[in-house]
Amino acid sequence: MEKVRVAVVGATGYTGAELLRLLVGHPRVVVTRVVGHGKAGQAIAQALPSFHGVLDGMIVAFDADDVRAHADVAFLALPHGAAAAVAKELRARGMLVLDLSADFRLHDRAVHTQWYGEDHAPELAASAVYGLPELHREALRHAELIAVPGCFPTASTLALAPLLRDRLVLTKGLIVDAKSGVSGAGRSPLPSTHFPETSEGIRAYKSAGQHRHTPEIEQELSAIAGEPIRIVFTPHLVPMTRGLLATAYAIPVDDAVTAARCTEAARALYAGSPTVVVLETGSHPDTLWVRGSARAHVAFARDDRTGTIIAQAAIDNLGKGASGQAVQCLNIRLGFAEDAGLPAVAMFP
Amino acid sequence: MEKVRVAVVGATGYTGAELLRLLVGHPRVVVTRVVGHGKAGQAIAQALPSFHGVLDGMIVAFDADDVRAHADVAFLALPHGAAAAVAKELRARGMLVLDLSADFRLHDRAVHTQWYGEDHAPELAASAVYGLPELHREALRHAELIAVPGCFPTASTLALAPLLRDRLVLTKGLIVDAKSGVSGAGRSPLPSTHFPETSEGIRAYKSAGQHRHTPEIEQELSAIAGEPIRIVFTPHLVPMTRGLLATAYAIPVDDAVTAARCTEAARALYAGSPTVVVLETGSHPDTLWVRGSARAHVAFARDDRTGTIIAQAAIDNLGKGASGQAVQCLNIRLGFAEDAGLPAVAMFP
Amino acid sequence: MEKVRVAVVGATGYTGAELLRLLVGHPRVVVTRVVGHGKAGQAIAQALPSFHGVLDGMIVAFDADDVRAHADVAFLALPHGAAAAVAKELRARGMLVLDLSADFRLHDRAVHTQWYGEDHAPELAASAVYGLPELHREALRHAELIAVPGCFPTASTLALAPLLRDRLVLTKGLIVDAKSGVSGAGRSPLPSTHFPETSEGIRAYKSAGQHRHTPEIEQELSAIAGEPIRIVFTPHLVPMTRGLLATAYAIPVDDAVTAARCTEAARALYAGSPTVVVLETGSHPDTLWVRGSARAHVAFARDDRTGTIIAQAAIDNLGKGASGQAVQCLNIRLGFAEDAGLPAVAMFP
Amino acid sequence: MEKVRVAVVGATGYTGAELLRLLVGHPRVVVTRVVGHGKAGQAIAQALPSFHGVLDGMIVAFDADDVRAHADVAFLALPHGAAAAVAKELRARGMLVLDLSADFRLHDRAVHTQWYGEDHAPELAASAVYGLPELHREALRHAELIAVPGCFPTASTLALAPLLRDRLVLTKGLIVDAKSGVSGAGRSPLPSTHFPETSEGIRAYKSAGQHRHTPEIEQELSAIAGEPIRIVFTPHLVPMTRGLLATAYAIPVDDAVTAARCTEAARALYAGSPTVVVLETGSHPDTLWVRGSARAHVAFARDDRTGTIIAQAAIDNLGKGASGQAVQCLNIRLGFAEDAGLPAVAMFP
Repeated sequence: MEKVRVAVVGATGYTGAELLRLLVGHPRVVVTRVVGHGKAGQAIAQALPSFHGVLDGMIVAFDADDVRAHADVAFLALPHGAAAAVAKELRARGMLVLDLSADFRLHDRAVHTQWYGEDHAPELAASAVYGLPELHREALRHAELIAVPGCFPTASTLALAPLLRDRLVLTKGLIVDAKSGVSGAGRSPLPSTHFPETSEGIRAYKSAGQHRHTPEIEQELSAIAGEPIRIVFTPHLVPMTRGLLATAYAIPVDDAVTAARCTEAARALYAGSPTVVVLETGSHPDTLWVRGSARAHVAFARDDRTGTIIAQAAIDNLGKGASGQAVQCLNIRLGFAEDAGLPAVAMFP
Repeated sequence: MEKVRVAVVGATGYTGAELLRLLVGHPRVVVTRVVGHGKAGQAIAQALPSFHGVLDGMIVAFDADDVRAHADVAFLALPHGAAAAVAKELRARGMLVLDLSADFRLHDRAVHTQWYGEDHAPELAASAVYGLPELHREALRHAELIAVPGCFPTASTLALAPLLRDRLVLTKGLIVDAKSGVSGAGRSPLPSTHFPETSEGIRAYKSAGQHRHTPEIEQELSAIAGEPIRIVFTPHLVPMTRGLLATAYAIPVDDAVTAARCTEAARALYAGSPTVVVLETGSHPDTLWVRGSARAHVAFARDDRTGTIIAQAAIDNLGKGASGQAVQCLNIRLGFAEDAGLPAVAMFP
Repeated sequence: MEKVRVAVVGATGYTGAELLRLLVGHPRVVVTRVVGHGKAGQAIAQALPSFHGVLDGMIVAFDADDVRAHADVAFLALPHGAAAAVAKELRARGMLVLDLSADFRLHDRAVHTQWYGEDHAPELAASAVYGLPELHREALRHAELIAVPGCFPTASTLALAPLLRDRLVLTKGLIVDAKSGVSGAGRSPLPSTHFPETSEGIRAYKSAGQHRHTPEIEQELSAIAGEPIRIVFTPHLVPMTRGLLATAYAIPVDDAVTAARCTEAARALYAGSPTVVVLETGSHPDTLWVRGSARAHVAFARDDRTGTIIAQAAIDNLGKGASGQAVQCLNIRLGFAEDAGLPAVAMFP
Repeated sequence: MEKVRVAVVGATGYTGAELLRLLVGHPRVVVTRVVGHGKAGQAIAQALPSFHGVLDGMIVAFDADDVRAHADVAFLALPHGAAAAVAKELRARGMLVLDLSADFRLHDRAVHTQWYGEDHAPELAASAVYGLPELHREALRHAELIAVPGCFPTASTLALAPLLRDRLVLTKGLIVDAKSGVSGAGRSPLPSTHFPETSEGIRAYKSAGQHRHTPEIEQELSAIAGEPIRIVFTPHLVPMTRGLLATAYAIPVDDAVTAARCTEAARALYAGSPTVVVLETGSHPDTLWVRGSARAHVAFARDDRTGTIIAQAAIDNLGKGASGQAVQCLNIRLGFAEDAGLPAVAMFP
């Protein structure tokens, strides 16, 4: 069977490296171009020693014609802003583009500008499909530009979407308290990700409506609820490498909304998804059990003392949140098995 | 200056070992009895090699008369249930007792029985003073039995008490999403604290009104608010050894309740406390900066998009939450400097 | 293509769980029996939540006839002693057995008895082939009982074998200072693997000729050197979950033995192996880059100031050391691609 | 009692911050100047939030006259090269200087130049005393410039010195395989210390005679042995924040050199030191038990199978290796109790 030729642009960061890991094991794909910026000219295995004996070529600088000549599909694992420019060039050459940055995720470009500054590609943004398969599977089948969601929006949306879709909870008073592993902060060393200042610290950051993933979560939840939604979103940095747990709080519309009813709503919404597992009512999703996989574990509980629904989702921030989800989108778009090339089983321990 | 003779009963668990560390450095105290159960008969430095050359004696089995003969004050670092029996024996002999278990923390003994089962010492419980100095400093000066709070209640209460005291937030809809290091689970090895299953996992446990610290937090918040309060409390286990971060959400009574107003309320309540630092508005308390110390870092923010107050407190779960706070209570009770023997500065990194 | 039916006996420990992870992704294999002891009767996904939606069956208790009826090949991930008894039953029924315990690794059964006590299966041991493919590939093609090496022997032998084979170093004065992640200690919680007592501690254990892997390393090195070899072997426990680094010291036979010469010897010995990568001279193998894979990274340096060869090998202790290597042995035995089902690329980060 | 006025120059790195932590708790010292470079002008508690409420002043830029005006003693926690220039200025003003850099550690300045390049203060170097109290206590009593050793030399020397002093081992064939926590690499974020690339990786670095601590260890061992000594020194980076374990291998001169004999030699050499604990023969020093303290744990074993002495020393790299040891030197120099201000007991867990 002929394989689809794929380029990864921005291959040496964490989402890029994870894309490479998944794509070299994908049965329907061949990686033909590994594009980098600072490390262009190095052997792939020099920048990423895990590829010794697997990908023996070089990292090349970005050249749109070269990428087009060698590949049919491009994954962009670039900083926001940078991605838009590259996407424009590759779309102009007719390539299917899967962008892992924030550049095309927000449909309302005024909101995009408010959170990210200048809109580098307003004309392209209109055509982008938001790459959360569980909510947009049909649209993804025909997309030419896919805006793959970040890790926080993936977990937060998976936890709350079933409740809003079935109108089980109020649209006011939604709170998402999220905990992320450090790889979510990227590969550039920072004081806040320096091992000695990370390994025994937990802290919130960009709380109180400051984090740029907030409007993305609100966009998806508003769409499914059919009305504008605002959430409280508090991200925390946790001393672990991979994993993201979203703990969401919502007020049930009435006493009939048991945890079992929420579980049922989620099972209905996620039926057919190879990557979302709805655990039994009262379970506690744990990032340990999804690490390295493209799986989300979702579960629901109800605190009867206060009448509150607690919805949780655990993912690997690179596995379901970014790179794995991008591959899942590719599979849907090209008609492959939706889980082709995706690790089904977490690396445990 | 004559030193007060102190016994630590249950010395080889984490709270006991931390008590020993603090007490051997305390200028007004001498440790005269180190009492253990499973390790009785061992040298202290065998069970706790950090005490080589510092405490060269033996761990002895509990004998109330022997403890009384050699000490004036006893710290109990025992499992709940076990502590009550020991406390009775030592109080009957006239000793000052500081109990780190849950046995005497709840004033309403029906609530105690509901959460912990049989009440082993109902008659003693009435005399116990809850050992959170910032709320009960005066009562502690005359206490003979001090019930030192756990780590979750300390952090949760410190975050929310100023808001309720000044009636800045509604008494409904309070949520505490708490994150604890693994030492809070004690020294007994469990599957859930086994390194390979802890180091890359974050998970909630005993959520939805199941955790026994819930009524303790509610007791203190109800007292300060002047009305019965119920909270949503979700504890999480985080892959780090020490530290506890409570992230609390509350609904302000009106728009005049800014984060600055909350900060001011906290500074007023905690003025004079040597162990609570109220950070600038919008700061993010970080367990990194309190580890090994008896300090709490508290801060407030307001999410203007949704009208929500976010109150956070970071402590070392052993340093302010348990052992350090017990020493602080002793200092108050005996008229020592309130911070005598307490590490002012966290171990960083 | 018809798939080979495989049973995993002892599936819920770390080596068993890793076997399951690899085997469910293996293109030529189907897992038909998941056998456990303490967790028999549970759903697989209850004991190992990472298998939700992947392996939906039950863990069954061991029954040799049942295993034989449903499988052609059995992997044993059992404690030593227990494995021998099971192996006997399954071999008596004609099954191909890959044993990950120590029961059949030592050819000299007197040595086995000296280190492990009673020999539970002396008659079977004679037929066992030591499952280190890089040294015993041909013998493995016809083996009916394969004794898969442990993690320490794999890394230590891979580092030193090329030097001894080409007579580049003296056979006296060999030292292996090895550093293991905590998963190597198994899934049973112990004080020494309790997160708070592991995460900031490094320590040797069973040093000075006490560790049972010592004779296994010596057996392999002696065979390749053609004379009896004794080594100093010092294992250390390192606060990480997966990974094993062996740092070996050897005295070169003369000044012509450069690091480059050692690298060349290793490249010759490991040519054709899909799992051993010989890095450039002077590189430092890092467990980070092999984690989750079946790869070993090997490298050589020479300290010219003292005339010492430093040979290092980094592996994932479950990926090359135990489960991954077992699958590699299966592949050789059954004529599959030697790396079938083995992750080529480490999970990074 | 009047307190000695002390300045810390380079206060916001790890050794500087640890100096501040120790000095603010020191009964005979008052910190009067906190000098920084990049963070000059910031509040101390902004750069180091652990000092909120403890040191409320500012970080000031270096000015030799200002330092001299406000302090009698200066600790320098600066990069090598930078320290020499500052030391010259402060010594010229008659201050007692304790330098934690490498600038004055090597007596043979040709060796210094070979490893560090230009010698910035050859004239001063002659007067420096090497600040390892267990070997140079008497000289330290009169020193005006103290060159405090690094963490690797401290642990390596403490492990091997007793064996060489009593001529128990050969002076050839000495190997030190050392394992360091990440704080030893300093506070500047690097790719190699970025949490996701550190937390599950162990690796050697600057092996085979490349590490600059090598000549420092050799200087001390040569002096005590009375003949020139060369060692094999292999440092490894371990995924933990604090702690350093040196595992040293030596060949006993004859069969009478038992482990007990080595232990005895160490107890004789370290008698009177408040910071070195010689554990029982066959013990395994563990960084867990010295973390946060100024203690070294040392132990000896003999591998009878090969005739090899294994000597180990565990320290906290900041507690005994750098800052704590600097304070110990100050205490000796000023006639204070040698352990004044030094934490006797490790923070456990």
